[in-house]
Amino acid sequence: MEINDLPKLHSDFSVDCVVFGFDKGELRILLIERAEEPFKDYLALPGNLVYDNENIDQAANRVLTELTSLNDVYMEQLYTFGDVNRHPQGRVITVAYFSLIKVKKHTLNPLSTYAKKAQWCAVADLPPLAFDHQLILEKAYKRLQNKIRYQPIGFELLPEKFTLSQLQQLYEVILEKPIDKRNFRKKILSFGLLIELDEKQKNVSHRAAKLYKFNKTRYNNLKKMGFSFEL
Amino acid sequence: MEINDLPKLHSDFSVDCVVFGFDKGELRILLIERAEEPFKDYLALPGNLVYDNENIDQAANRVLTELTSLNDVYMEQLYTFGDVNRHPQGRVITVAYFSLIKVKKHTLNPLSTYAKKAQWCAVADLPPLAFDHQLILEKAYKRLQNKIRYQPIGFELLPEKFTLSQLQQLYEVILEKPIDKRNFRKKILSFGLLIELDEKQKNVSHRAAKLYKFNKTRYNNLKKMGFSFEL
Repeated sequence: MEINDLPKLHSDFSVDCVVFGFDKGELRILLIERAEEPFKDYLALPGNLVYDNENIDQAANRVLTELTSLNDVYMEQLYTFGDVNRHPQGRVITVAYFSLIKVKKHTLNPLSTYAKKAQWCAVADLPPLAFDHQLILEKAYKRLQNKIRYQPIGFELLPEKFTLSQLQQLYEVILEKPIDKRNFRKKILSFGLLIELDEKQKNVSHRAAKLYKFNKTRYNNLKKMGFSFEL
Repeated sequence: MEINDLPKLHSDFSVDCVVFGFDKGELRILLIERAEEPFKDYLALPGNLVYDNENIDQAANRVLTELTSLNDVYMEQLYTFGDVNRHPQGRVITVAYFSLIKVKKHTLNPLSTYAKKAQWCAVADLPPLAFDHQLILEKAYKRLQNKIRYQPIGFELLPEKFTLSQLQQLYEVILEKPIDKRNFRKKILSFGLLIELDEKQKNVSHRAAKLYKFNKTRYNNLKKMGFSFEL
């Protein structure tokens, strides 16, 4: 089927979700492989039209829950993309959402008709994406790079228990630059937001490091008192 | 005419503009008075449906230019509001924009059929607004409070030549708290972003203060080198 033979959509709005994960030292993004024209076989952000009876936040949550079975994840609205020609079938304005999830906590579900499969892809090594999804991803990546310095959202990407090296690596990968280990540890520990556990890494070839947890309750309390997180 | 007699809109998208100005020591917002149902006689954000042949950024610029004749102003996308029942005539998802303008630089134009007049209103003293525009305004105000600390956008609200007291007052009004004069001056001057003019205020009853200009070129150069503005 040619693009021009596709049925025209009326003006419509959709949501698209940029879902970041962090695994094996790489920043990853959850993409689907399209089963249909337009952009058949391309990788694309998971998304869908907004139903008449749901709010846009609900639509974004629905898309993510259908895909991952997760329903309690960090999600925020990112930006709305509405260029006249962004969708070959008609005018579709899409509200992009931005989500951070712990890669290991979910399984990917069987998908709807428009997607063959879903997979985690390394952000550093992506082929061209469908529609304007490359643009949406770039906007999301910038938001992540900016926000991770002023809000402790990085913890959403780590396992519940993590080492200080894992935390540093996360920052290095996302900010795309090396970080001085000593300064990083000093600063991150000075906030008093990490709980040092009486537990170490298991099954590692190097010397097992101490595990930590993020103290979200304390962060929320500090925030109310005007505390600013900044790394 | 009752709300229920109004023609139903189909799914549609609109833009709404939150236009801030600063005048006589107050933060102001540009509002229109509605000439039509729904919300006849209420104050509302200037906005309009997005035409089929224009991008959403263009639509927001059009709304602002029609109203103020200005076309070179600070504008950015704010957030998209799409609750199912936010518009009594049907599903209308609106993309809100956020704009900062110099109050004295424009005149307000005659308006379209849906608006009786446009006026600058003090943000601190507003009646209930039409639709969910109160919510949109709150989001915009938070963005302004947050952003003014990390980006030198406050200068968009001041006359081209301003005194340090005017600048301080702008920050105090927007952040809703008093600021220590000595620290503020020291910090703002330390950036080297203000050009001290060989000129003083005119027609003031108190001692005339020195005028300054914001050095945007220098800021843009510093930014490229990784400089962070922070007040």
